Amino acid sequence: MLPLFSSPLPTETLFLSKEVAMAFLGASSGQVNYDPQILMRKAHAATSSVGSATVIIAMLEKNGTLKIANVGDCGLRVLRKGQVIFSTPPQEHYFDCPYQLSSEIIGQTYLDAMVCTIELMEGDTIVMGSDGLFDNVFDHEIVSTTSRFKDAVEAAKALADLARDNSMDVSFDSPYSIEARSRGFDVPLWKKILGRKLTGGKPDDITVIVGQVISSLNDKKTEEALLKQKDLS
Amino acid sequence: MLPLFSSPLPTETLFLSKEVAMAFLGASSGQVNYDPQILMRKAHAATSSVGSATVIIAMLEKNGTLKIANVGDCGLRVLRKGQVIFSTPPQEHYFDCPYQLSSEIIGQTYLDAMVCTIELMEGDTIVMGSDGLFDNVFDHEIVSTTSRFKDAVEAAKALADLARDNSMDVSFDSPYSIEARSRGFDVPLWKKILGRKLTGGKPDDITVIVGQVISSLNDKKTEEALLKQKDLS
Repeated sequence: MLPLFSSPLPTETLFLSKEVAMAFLGASSGQVNYDPQILMRKAHAATSSVGSATVIIAMLEKNGTLKIANVGDCGLRVLRKGQVIFSTPPQEHYFDCPYQLSSEIIGQTYLDAMVCTIELMEGDTIVMGSDGLFDNVFDHEIVSTTSRFKDAVEAAKALADLARDNSMDVSFDSPYSIEARSRGFDVPLWKKILGRKLTGGKPDDITVIVGQVISSLNDKKTEEALLKQKDLS
Repeated sequence: MLPLFSSPLPTETLFLSKEVAMAFLGASSGQVNYDPQILMRKAHAATSSVGSATVIIAMLEKNGTLKIANVGDCGLRVLRKGQVIFSTPPQEHYFDCPYQLSSEIIGQTYLDAMVCTIELMEGDTIVMGSDGLFDNVFDHEIVSTTSRFKDAVEAAKALADLARDNSMDVSFDSPYSIEARSRGFDVPLWKKILGRKLTGGKPDDITVIVGQVISSLNDKKTEEALLKQKDLS
């Protein structure tokens, strides 16, 4: 399979976290065993900036296996036949305080990563984003928005625009406000009596990467052969 | 790693779907290559009953990799350090109409399965259930309920009881009613004007399996050696 990613980074790897992505360019020259958790460790070690960041890494192998390592509240969705068939939940210490890799020793490490894989198929769409996307855009909006575009870059832009618009809409009952209310945060009692509730998007930095899974002719033949082999086992 | 599962089936495999589980007992005698998708194909082929069912299969390998294949709206959650770090979304044709394996040719097959893996750690809790669980119990309730029990069987019973109670509570704003409203289903307009909304649980059959991941001494040594090896790569 060949991925088409709207990312300036090497096509096999999707990276969210600018600092770590830059470090990755150095780290990736060495051996990472096609393991996103090892890549995360090396990229983190190669990062010299002071601060902290949430990180998600996804590496697509030629056989269609997408390997994912995630620390914090970035997220990944796989869309197939008009629905989200796979998603990563956020990791956090408490509401709005995500796990993070840090330049200080207080933060999390690659050992805290959620590590998983998902078998992709031709036609699948991968959507990765920072919490600025998932706090402001529902999964069903991600599905409907990406379905309007054939081009991954255009879909990514549309999702980022939607996230920005929703984030500034104080009356929008966003994923963030629904989650906040479920954790006990809400408007004062007198406003509640008037029928009001905590609503609104969450202004934040927003990063979106969209990828589409396609098969090249040769890869398709290999894939079909593998599937046949698997089917016969 | 050694799993402790509240299931009468072999400890390495968690199965949801009575019919297919029975067929599994026959199919598993053959070679399934530790592949839940192949196991699903064989179990489906070995099922003679008329009807259809959603199916989820999870197989835990000794190195801690949990392999999952899912068709329909059963679900799986992995709990780590008091939060859901992994979850499977439902697959459905439209609201309340899940993908299903069937005795007829109109249904889905193992090829429609969402296939993924998650790397488990000692101390993780696995919760698998039919939609009767996830339509009536929020993830945060799953976390708080399982945290009250050391014993997996007791935790599974408590979750099933909670799901049953919530399913019969007409005023409970359940995951099901929230999802229904988000899909455009609600009470008639005159009730809406009176401030009412569609609420209530969803009476349904409820199946819950809970597993806890522990390491035996030997396995722990192997695991540590592997981790060290990985860390050094």
